[in-house]
Amino acid sequence: VPAVTRPLRADARRNRDRIVAVAQEVFAEQGAGASLDEVARRAGVGAGTLYRHFPNRAALQEAVYRGAVEELAGLGRTLLDTRGAAPAVEGWMRLLVAHMVARRGLAEALVDALGKTSGVFADTHRVLHETGGAIVERARAAGAVRDDLDQRDLLWMAHGVSLAAESDGGEARVERMLTVLIAGLAG
Amino acid sequence: VPAVTRPLRADARRNRDRIVAVAQEVFAEQGAGASLDEVARRAGVGAGTLYRHFPNRAALQEAVYRGAVEELAGLGRTLLDTRGAAPAVEGWMRLLVAHMVARRGLAEALVDALGKTSGVFADTHRVLHETGGAIVERARAAGAVRDDLDQRDLLWMAHGVSLAAESDGGEARVERMLTVLIAGLAG
Repeated sequence: VPAVTRPLRADARRNRDRIVAVAQEVFAEQGAGASLDEVARRAGVGAGTLYRHFPNRAALQEAVYRGAVEELAGLGRTLLDTRGAAPAVEGWMRLLVAHMVARRGLAEALVDALGKTSGVFADTHRVLHETGGAIVERARAAGAVRDDLDQRDLLWMAHGVSLAAESDGGEARVERMLTVLIAGLAG
Repeated sequence: VPAVTRPLRADARRNRDRIVAVAQEVFAEQGAGASLDEVARRAGVGAGTLYRHFPNRAALQEAVYRGAVEELAGLGRTLLDTRGAAPAVEGWMRLLVAHMVARRGLAEALVDALGKTSGVFADTHRVLHETGGAIVERARAAGAVRDDLDQRDLLWMAHGVSLAAESDGGEARVERMLTVLIAGLAG
């Protein structure tokens, strides 16, 4: 088996997971260009261990981004399992917007490094479409979302709202825009 | 009187206005980088006349952009004078989105040429805020728009919707997003 596809031993896996979790925090605090030595230090591993798992910055950024989307999708599945149709779609819109606001810099860094057509975007879009699609379909069936809306529409709406985070008083504006959108979803 | 501030004679004024009107069409068809010789030809003036009025491309782009915003504001004032509070704000949202979709390339060219802090943006924002502010204030008083929304919120909403024009099936998606927004404005 070539080294790159060999499954990680349990301790190597734990190191990798810890590095990704710490990088998510450090990127959130300092941006996607934060010091990787700082990430290694906080994760309690040597720089060599970090570079063995992630040979370049983009590889670590990609792992953080995939992890964030998986986490988001997991929260979406929980909404689907535990909430009614209307609160689930409202919660999903809020999660999407918060994700886009928090990960804009990371997503832009990945586009710069890997290009828009990178597999990371195809994979993460598929994850969001699956989870979001199930939430929106149920909400449509329950009359909580207009018949003519689909999951892509909601992603574009969340994208539009998330951009306002960059304006003066952006946090409160995002909240007002979300309120308008959610009030209008049922048409 | 220095030449740059001397009022234009009537025929020079007519030439200038015709060049701007033609440039608006040509930029809409071919983008803000369209041939200025083509603009002069269609306006029925020589290239020398065009360059006397607009010494560089950015000067002509700025005149077209200012003209488009003045036209938009005029349509907004007509809405205010002739329509009820709710239809006026709905019409204003549609006008704003159509303007942003149609002028994105032109606005980006101007930002590249003159910078975001150019007076053209301060001036055109003021025009939009005055007209839009009056429309939104009346709609709020009539209960057609939530009390906590202001004209800047509506500009950000229109901006968010206008970006979806670039997606697959963008025209129909923009229409769906507008419908949701308008349905949600009253809260």
